[in-house]
Amino acid sequence: MISTLIGLSAATLTMFSFIPQIARALRTKSVKDVSPVTLFQLSLGVCLWIIYGVLRKDPVIITANVVTLISLGILIFLFFKYGREK
Amino acid sequence: MISTLIGLSAATLTMFSFIPQIARALRTKSVKDVSPVTLFQLSLGVCLWIIYGVLRKDPVIITANVVTLISLGILIFLFFKYGREK
Repeated sequence: MISTLIGLSAATLTMFSFIPQIARALRTKSVKDVSPVTLFQLSLGVCLWIIYGVLRKDPVIITANVVTLISLGILIFLFFKYGREK
Repeated sequence: MISTLIGLSAATLTMFSFIPQIARALRTKSVKDVSPVTLFQLSLGVCLWIIYGVLRKDPVIITANVVTLISLGILIFLFFKYGREK
């Protein structure tokens, strides 16, 4: 079904979307223009999406948001690491 | 139902998550640490989510992703505006 294929492509693109941001932070060792509020707000939202996925027993929602949460966790770690070094 | 409430909170938090990033970019007039690949990859993914929402006739998916797409559009505009000024 075409909509499933589009949904899967959408999920794949969005769940890995912070990998380039992590790569950039690691390369430049600078994260000062990245908003920490955005990172924390997104992380909280993504946590709620995971709970929603668990309650609805939806493995696609769970998987996509766990991947996003891990990348956001790495970014928050880098934010504090590089933020403190300056 | 509790899962609907959690889903709505999740959607609200994530769809407005780039507003603080826009505010920061406007304040600092600097976006050099923001990954353009992340912005474009997310925008493409969010476009596919909108198509998915339209095909599935799901107004929540459509609304959440249209709001995200608008904020990403503003961020991409600021990325090029401030990127060129440097």
